[in-house]
Amino acid sequence: MSASLTIALDAMGGDNAPAIVVKGADFARQRFPGVRFHMFGDENSILPLMKRRKRLQEITEITHTEDAISNEMKVSAALRKGRQSSMQLAINAVRDGDAGGVVSAGNTGALMAMAKLALRTLPGIDRPAIAAIFPTMRGESVMLDLGANVECDAENLVQFAIMGDVFARTVLGTVNPSCGLLNVGSEEMKGHAEIQQASAYLRGMSDIINFQGFVEGDDIAAGTTDVIVSDGFTGNIALKTTEGTARLIKEFLGDAFRSSISSRLGFVFARRGLRKMRDRIDPRRYNGAMFLGLTGIAVKSHGGTDAFGFANAIGVAVDMASNGFNEKITEGLRGLGGMKSETREAAAS
Amino acid sequence: MSASLTIALDAMGGDNAPAIVVKGADFARQRFPGVRFHMFGDENSILPLMKRRKRLQEITEITHTEDAISNEMKVSAALRKGRQSSMQLAINAVRDGDAGGVVSAGNTGALMAMAKLALRTLPGIDRPAIAAIFPTMRGESVMLDLGANVECDAENLVQFAIMGDVFARTVLGTVNPSCGLLNVGSEEMKGHAEIQQASAYLRGMSDIINFQGFVEGDDIAAGTTDVIVSDGFTGNIALKTTEGTARLIKEFLGDAFRSSISSRLGFVFARRGLRKMRDRIDPRRYNGAMFLGLTGIAVKSHGGTDAFGFANAIGVAVDMASNGFNEKITEGLRGLGGMKSETREAAAS
Repeated sequence: MSASLTIALDAMGGDNAPAIVVKGADFARQRFPGVRFHMFGDENSILPLMKRRKRLQEITEITHTEDAISNEMKVSAALRKGRQSSMQLAINAVRDGDAGGVVSAGNTGALMAMAKLALRTLPGIDRPAIAAIFPTMRGESVMLDLGANVECDAENLVQFAIMGDVFARTVLGTVNPSCGLLNVGSEEMKGHAEIQQASAYLRGMSDIINFQGFVEGDDIAAGTTDVIVSDGFTGNIALKTTEGTARLIKEFLGDAFRSSISSRLGFVFARRGLRKMRDRIDPRRYNGAMFLGLTGIAVKSHGGTDAFGFANAIGVAVDMASNGFNEKITEGLRGLGGMKSETREAAAS
Repeated sequence: MSASLTIALDAMGGDNAPAIVVKGADFARQRFPGVRFHMFGDENSILPLMKRRKRLQEITEITHTEDAISNEMKVSAALRKGRQSSMQLAINAVRDGDAGGVVSAGNTGALMAMAKLALRTLPGIDRPAIAAIFPTMRGESVMLDLGANVECDAENLVQFAIMGDVFARTVLGTVNPSCGLLNVGSEEMKGHAEIQQASAYLRGMSDIINFQGFVEGDDIAAGTTDVIVSDGFTGNIALKTTEGTARLIKEFLGDAFRSSISSRLGFVFARRGLRKMRDRIDPRRYNGAMFLGLTGIAVKSHGGTDAFGFANAIGVAVDMASNGFNEKITEGLRGLGGMKSETREAAAS
């Protein structure tokens, strides 16, 4: 890890900001020695929280901002009025090369729009995508896009596949990650034209992508492939459906353990094992949605997370920055450049 | 319940056919006195299974068929070669008025195609939809389409909403069911044009549909609305994602209980409560995907289900037939007919 990596933090984003940001940074500091922070936000709220955190103080620069983007603010208003906001200035630090990545738990739409405008897309990437890590039967997979692009054409999907591939290699450490395109199962209805076209492209790119074909909704949790590529509409529905189902089962499980004295006792005996299970699917562990495809690294933390979750989002940004994520995407796209015309011909024939 | 209701059964569909079909019919017989069955399939396999089931014999007619549709068979081949198959003949029994509904655990694509051709869509319905019941925090919801139509326009979605509404009223017994359109959450990207248009139509139909607006993936399990309307692509992904997530958590839960002697003991104490929980999300309980919008009732059982699950699929067909599901859809559409031009104008303005 580079000793000079700085992560810009939007100290005002999130339900419990700036407390979760300061405390989260302090957790992350212990996990990633050498990393420095640049916090943007209201000094009057931040400084008291820093008081007893001497070691965090030593590695943290604070830039005072009066403005913050609220969760309710529309994207258009955020862009217009938020030029001096903590979110915008934190992003600008990445744009200006003062920070290697930015993390915010604030307004997702505003963060995406600001990051897109300030950082712009990487050469060869038409649209950025939102990605996240999912726990699976086989370990962890990365899925994208989770909502940045409601409509995607075949080339967008191919670019997402490359970004997902690089992410799995650099952040998850997967060797030769397998990649699947999210689709419906039946033979007779293999999804939209864009998916079929993307599949044809990807089949022609076996030198750079280990493409396994179509996967279905249940393959996400099964971990059938290391990377799952989807348009942003479908990906968002799948992500939220996963969250909703997990919450439902958790609720039913709680009811089960509360249903009798014997069950309560059972819970006590099984508690340690159950805690381990909870940790495996802890949403805080998987906190941090990555905006991939921009010239700088931007990570969105869940707004309702705590300091532990926020520290994990910082961890994702650190991993991406210190492993040269964007440089590797550019390399991947260079590989694609050489293949592109051939694969299109192959797909067309 | 009508004493003369007959359900046609494809005895050869499903991984363990005809055993699950015969045994499932025997379960259903006990639950629905007065219902009769007409089984289509290979007599040589069916008759030995009927031997000790005297009371089932009394209410069951068997039509011998040589042909059966395999799971691997393509839809086109099934339509061409399957004219004398157990599946086709069971559907024909509904078409000819000899049965009030058909249940098959066989090839989904073939069943849908055969049912569509033989039964045709109800007047006012352009495309049939696949629906299923989901367990939720608030009880049960019905979602459609789950895969019959990869691409849907606004009118298809409105028709699905009406069918879902009637289903919730007649089968789930919901009074004034609420209805939501599945969409992504953020303000800036409220989904495809078709969804926005469908939403505008539905908002103008408050006399016949209790439309609540857009819902997100996590609203399915939350039970935010009683009916969830989606295109078949998204609905299929959501359905399978739910199944995959449930399977993953079940696996992790098993690991948790196996992780130590204390946890194993905990499982023993909590067993009864856990069994109750398992029953609440038992896929067999929710077995039976309904093909809605056809002139006859057709229910698809999961291919891998057991007799208990198959009996539940029969139960869905019985409920739909005996509660006059199709008659009520026709009424609902009549209501729409009067509203249609107005709502379109309202939506366009």
